[in-house]
Formats: sequence, structure tokens, C-alpha cells
Amino acid sequence: MAPVTNGRTIDLQNAPLHGGVLIKVLILSMDPYMRGRLRAPEIESLEGYGIGVILRSETAGVEAGAHVRGILAHKEYIIASDITALEVIERDPRLHWSAYVGAAGMPGETAFIGWREHSDAKKGEVAYISTGAGPVGSMVIQLAKQDGLKVIASAGSDEKVKFMKEIGADVAFNYKTTDLREVLAKEGPLDIFWDNVGGETLDAALEFSANYARIIECGQISGYNNAGQPVKNTGLIFAKRLHIHGFLVLDLSPKYTAAFRAEFVPKLASGEFKFTEDVTRGLDKVGDVMVAVQKGTNTGKAVVVVADE
Amino acid sequence: MAPVTNGRTIDLQNAPLHGGVLIKVLILSMDPYMRGRLRAPEIESLEGYGIGVILRSETAGVEAGAHVRGILAHKEYIIASDITALEVIERDPRLHWSAYVGAAGMPGETAFIGWREHSDAKKGEVAYISTGAGPVGSMVIQLAKQDGLKVIASAGSDEKVKFMKEIGADVAFNYKTTDLREVLAKEGPLDIFWDNVGGETLDAALEFSANYARIIECGQISGYNNAGQPVKNTGLIFAKRLHIHGFLVLDLSPKYTAAFRAEFVPKLASGEFKFTEDVTRGLDKVGDVMVAVQKGTNTGKAVVVVADE
Repeated sequence: MAPVTNGRTIDLQNAPLHGGVLIKVLILSMDPYMRGRLRAPEIESLEGYGIGVILRSETAGVEAGAHVRGILAHKEYIIASDITALEVIERDPRLHWSAYVGAAGMPGETAFIGWREHSDAKKGEVAYISTGAGPVGSMVIQLAKQDGLKVIASAGSDEKVKFMKEIGADVAFNYKTTDLREVLAKEGPLDIFWDNVGGETLDAALEFSANYARIIECGQISGYNNAGQPVKNTGLIFAKRLHIHGFLVLDLSPKYTAAFRAEFVPKLASGEFKFTEDVTRGLDKVGDVMVAVQKGTNTGKAVVVVADE
Repeated sequence: MAPVTNGRTIDLQNAPLHGGVLIKVLILSMDPYMRGRLRAPEIESLEGYGIGVILRSETAGVEAGAHVRGILAHKEYIIASDITALEVIERDPRLHWSAYVGAAGMPGETAFIGWREHSDAKKGEVAYISTGAGPVGSMVIQLAKQDGLKVIASAGSDEKVKFMKEIGADVAFNYKTTDLREVLAKEGPLDIFWDNVGGETLDAALEFSANYARIIECGQISGYNNAGQPVKNTGLIFAKRLHIHGFLVLDLSPKYTAAFRAEFVPKLASGEFKFTEDVTRGLDKVGDVMVAVQKGTNTGKAVVVVADE
């Protein structure tokens, strides 16, 4: 079978590049936020964070064999007229490329940046991390433990609870079988809440926040598929002098990328910080994995391996 | 009639002070937050921000004739064992004492501190100020105009709308007769929202916020008398990278008091910053004024003058 790109055959050796590059897609990251990118089937919209290798280049300064990371079309091969939006990356030999869309990539950087920029964490404080077994939440747990905090973490299966305990959570529970408010009433009040959920979880966190608590809004998966769950306790923001910060990693990345590479990635490579991956092979599996991520049935950072090098 | 304190007669010349002071209450401030202090009638709970003059003192360093400001019992005279919780204040001769519980007091300082600490205002940005005719909101309008912002402001009567225009609001409207969402859709998006209301107003502000907007939670009068109105748009905190800050003026006062006195109060005394007062005479009127403040029927900062000097 000849190589194809988006249903069309491509001649890898001779396809004209017009001064651009030919990229072979290796890894695609599957993330909750991709829900917002879905369009009607007739619109060719799918793209996402991924890693590819340059097979051929007509662009000065870009060499064949280099690896690039960024938003890639969901295809096997891409002819790109320029790669200024992509980042040329190198790999720690102790890590697979797949880690570079997960713990050593955007999710890890999201955790690192959000925590550094907005947590104002102090030793002995209490942090609650929702979706604590996810690719972001699991990194936040380990960052919080590194800073000497008591960590409460929740996820939606007993297997995930076990993982959260392994990576250091002091209190880990399955929110489907344990009452969140009871846990927070007993283990709080919260100085920091890392919110990946929104809705009732945010409401409970507001209720059990300490004065001066920081709430980091990293996502609200509970609202992605509806108009947004109402939150009743916003009046407490004033009364408790809370600070709530929304952020997107790309905005703050320039400020933190060097520190992330120097301080965080080596901890992943050495095994000090633990992470899990849920790897699926084949571009045709993207739809299934995307649904699994929305349902939370994946275990570990969801990655599709499109091809080996 | 002999002077009384809390229904009991007091001998102003001879009542024993036991090393403390005798204070004559001059001014009591009536503020929305006092709703939270109301208790059952049999509990002697009423107290509030006010100004008094020291009639006699047995405390070293405290002279008769000095004026003090702070939380005072709602009485005509107070014998206090110590006044460390009160602040000795002086008056700009161009201002009445009543100003020192309003524009030159806690409400003014609330506006000054909240704006300085949390607005991150930049010239040309758009700010929306709810309860813009109130003692805090009217000061925020003038601070925002001083910083070169476009100011949208709302209040609940046409008279208040007129006042907000007089003090510089570019867009002023009566929220009871004009649709907030229509105004914000036309005049926004918002870079700063000063929230004194909460509930649906906060929801609308979230909807019409620009990316990176700052929301300053100064109070949520809509929720004081119920369990809190639900807010649907908290998911936008993440998507728009919003920052929401609750604060109480007393926490930040030490950081800003000197600047407030040096930079803000002189603008009130010179007339550059305008303010209005709604003065009622007599301690027995406290209940009526408190209700008026909750209903918003007062015009200008509500003050009860208990006595002249």
C-alpha cells in the first residue's frame, strides 16, 4: 500500500515541497480540550498536538531527521509550507517520544506553569486536585508534594485512586463512590484547588476553601458537553478573599519553558516523578480514543502512535 | 435628660474609666455588609464603623479631644478599656467628619485598594462598575477615569444614573429599565469588572469579558439575603484566562493607607473627586437607614450623625 495523506496517495520521494517540508506524523496527543474542536463530519477540522519527524526539507535551517512538535493535522504525512508554528525538539534518551506530548509536553508544562504562576504554595498548606490521575493532575500532585503540601486528590475509578496514592496523594478517593463534600469537610479547608472539572466540584471547593485560597482553573470537563453547570457559591469569593485564575499554557510558556526543561523533565527521566501512558496504535483509532478521553475510561495519558520512525 | 449609654444613664464627668477612655459617638456608617451582622433582637450585636471623640482619658498617650475611628457600638457613649483597635485620625479642614466614614474612609479606601491591588488597569481598557453610584462604586468610576479607561456603570435609579455621568462614566444606565446584556454586548468586551452585585450581573460580566479580564469581587449584595444566585458561566474563567479576586479592605490597608492619605484624600478635599452623602440625624434612625441601604433607596453614602461635638 502506498503512503497516503488524508486519503490521497503521496510520493514520499518526489512530492513537490515548494520550499517547505515533508513531515511524517509519529505521535498524536488525545486531550479533553479537543471536544471544542469537533465540527460536522463534512468539515475537515481535526488537528491536535503531536510530534513528527522531518523526512525531507527544502526550508533553510530545517534538517531531515529533526523532530517537530506542535499542532499537526490528523494525517500520516503532512506537506507544510513553513514550520514556524512548530517547535524543533530533542529527546532525553531515557524517555520515549510519546512522553513529549504528555508529562514532558503540554500537560506536564500545564501543571508546572499553572502551579508556579498561580498556586503561591506554602509548606503545610492543603491542596485539592481534581482529576488527579490525569496527565495534568498527576503532575500537580507531585509538584504539590514536592512543595510540602498535604494533597487531596480525586478520580473516577479505584485503579486511578491506587495510582494517585502511589504518586504521593495523602488522601485519594473515587468521586463516584465517595462524597466529595464529606472528604473536604474532614480533610480541608483548602488553600489551593486545582480545578479540571467545574460545576458541583467547584461549588464544593468554594464551600470548603480557607480564607485567601487560590483556585486554579485549568479546565471544566463537566461543562464541555453542556451549557455549563451552575455554581452557587461565588459569593464566597468575596467573603473568603479567594483568588481564581484561569490560564492557558501557551500564554505563559515563554516565561517558563526553560525552567520546565531544566527542572521538571529531568525528574521524569530519572523516575522521580512518575507518569503513565495509555498508548493506542493507528490513526484510525483517533475517534475511539477521543471518546474514551471524554468518558475518562483511559488510564494514563492518552496517546495515538501513528507510526514508528 | 441625662446622657445615656445603651439605655443606662452615664455620668460623663465621674463615670469610672478604670484606665480606659470615654468616647462620645459622633458618626456611624451604614453599609451593605452590615446585613451579615444582624442577629436575633435579644442579642446585643449592633456595632459598626464610626467616628467618636475622646471626652476623657485615663490611657497614656490618648488625649481628650482626639478623634478615633473604627468599629464602635451603636451607642451614644462608650467606655472602652483600651482603644488599640481604633485609629486616631485627623481631619482635612475642607472635609466634614462624615467624609471619614465614606469617601475618605473605608468605602473610599476599599475602592482605592481594590483598584490598585487587583485592576491592573491600562489606558484605553473598558471597565464595568456595578452599583456605580454607591460610596465604593462612585470612587472606582473616578479612579478608572483617572487611569484613562472607558467606564460603563450601572445603578438602580435615573437620579443615580445622572450622578454617575456627572462623575465621568462614559456609559451609565439604570439596570432596572435597561438590559445589562445589551449594554455589555454593545459597549464591551470588559477588561475589568468591579462586582458589588454577584448573581446574574456576574454571569453577564463573565459572558462579555475580554480574554485576560480582571474581576474584582467587592461584594455580592444580590446574595446577602438568599443562599446565593447561581452563576452559569464559570467555565469561561478558564477559556478566557480570567482572574477573579476577592478582597477585604482591612487585609490590605497596611500596604496602602499612606498612599490613600497622600494621593486620594486630597482629591476629595479639593473637589477633584466628587462624592455624595445621605445624612440622617439620630441614633434611633439606624434601623431605617440600614433597611434603606439594603433596598438601595438612599442617595449617596449613608451616614447617621449621632451627635455634634
